[in-house]
Amino acid sequence: MLLFYQKDIVIGEQPLGEEEAKHCLRVLRMQKGDKLYFTDGKGHLAHAVISEDTLKKARIQVIQLETHPNPSFHTHIAIAPTKNIERMEWFVEKCVEIGVHSLSFVLTKYTERSYFNMERIEKKAVSAMKQSLKYWLPTLNAPQSFDNFLTTLTPQNYPQLFIAYVDKTNPTTLFQTAQAHLPTCILIGPEGDFSLDEVEKAQQKGFIKVGLGESRLRTETAGIVACTTMQMIQEK
Amino acid sequence: MLLFYQKDIVIGEQPLGEEEAKHCLRVLRMQKGDKLYFTDGKGHLAHAVISEDTLKKARIQVIQLETHPNPSFHTHIAIAPTKNIERMEWFVEKCVEIGVHSLSFVLTKYTERSYFNMERIEKKAVSAMKQSLKYWLPTLNAPQSFDNFLTTLTPQNYPQLFIAYVDKTNPTTLFQTAQAHLPTCILIGPEGDFSLDEVEKAQQKGFIKVGLGESRLRTETAGIVACTTMQMIQEK
Repeated sequence: MLLFYQKDIVIGEQPLGEEEAKHCLRVLRMQKGDKLYFTDGKGHLAHAVISEDTLKKARIQVIQLETHPNPSFHTHIAIAPTKNIERMEWFVEKCVEIGVHSLSFVLTKYTERSYFNMERIEKKAVSAMKQSLKYWLPTLNAPQSFDNFLTTLTPQNYPQLFIAYVDKTNPTTLFQTAQAHLPTCILIGPEGDFSLDEVEKAQQKGFIKVGLGESRLRTETAGIVACTTMQMIQEK
Repeated sequence: MLLFYQKDIVIGEQPLGEEEAKHCLRVLRMQKGDKLYFTDGKGHLAHAVISEDTLKKARIQVIQLETHPNPSFHTHIAIAPTKNIERMEWFVEKCVEIGVHSLSFVLTKYTERSYFNMERIEKKAVSAMKQSLKYWLPTLNAPQSFDNFLTTLTPQNYPQLFIAYVDKTNPTTLFQTAQAHLPTCILIGPEGDFSLDEVEKAQQKGFIKVGLGESRLRTETAGIVACTTMQMIQEK
């Protein structure tokens, strides 16, 4: 099954977005009458046919619209962007494949990158969603300051808050500590780690320090391992 | 701590390999008398000083040689190489970071790539080992046929054999099935999946079919998730 993406989908006829039109008509050489599947990344799977196959005026007819619920557990990974943007793109791709609900990019004291192209990040996410046949696109939050990010979290929206940080006072891992079926936010630090001040602020906010296993991981690998760990925990 | 790599290390004076010499002397501008750490990827950590800092005649004096045991559990991931070689390089990097003992590249019926540069793969592995401060380099086996690969495995060397394959008869996951502290080999198929014939041959050999969770994963992501899962299982 090939899955296409269209931001807003309704039952009936509608124009087909430019990029997907190119993919369907030019790359895959689909024609009027051909069936195809769409998701809007908001839980819908649309069964459609091509009703107009000219590239610039491409249209589809949506015949059926299924609604799929978002998985019952909610994982939010907040990560300090790496210097190398490819590592972040890869992180986004893999999190979407494995399963994640929100991704935030947080500018910490030792973050080496403050700007990055959210459009490219969103494209990676959409493409991974399609490839892994998912119907929910994670919420993608543009880079924001560490302090600002903390203000967006409450014990109501995230009963489980973890910060990936290892020191002498902290022998437990995310896997040992996190519980299943609770909305969970996990903070992943930059290559230079969180500052002590940041760790303190997070702890005041209710974040619990956890490790991610025995290995020293790169930022993006830590993000993926945290994401996989939260999936495993639901199976425990 | 910065960790360097030298294939064979002994106590006393010895020439420094060309690549690491460039890195130490040219990039990091280290000089005679500077201290540094080496591993041979065979469990040793060497404390050394630079005894000769000319690029072409670079030498080190190894003062102390620590021996570190390999982690008690043994994970072997055998994967069908992806068409895009970068995805395999990334897979190797991440497995080494997270922790793996052997990596094999297996040519299955639907594998789209038969040749790849093992030297580049080895470089990726060495670099990830150094970066994650590990002292063991995984065994890296060059591409071989599926049938040939199966002959290398016995119940003695691998009491746990799994094949990542999902069908109607197979509702369990690796996480639910695998036990800790047993040498384990996990087969990961290509984008077009294993052929039925291959699944049968693997089963005859004692491989058990397992899923890796609810998501449809790309080959390299499946490899990483399997590797992370085996780490988690040791913590269960």
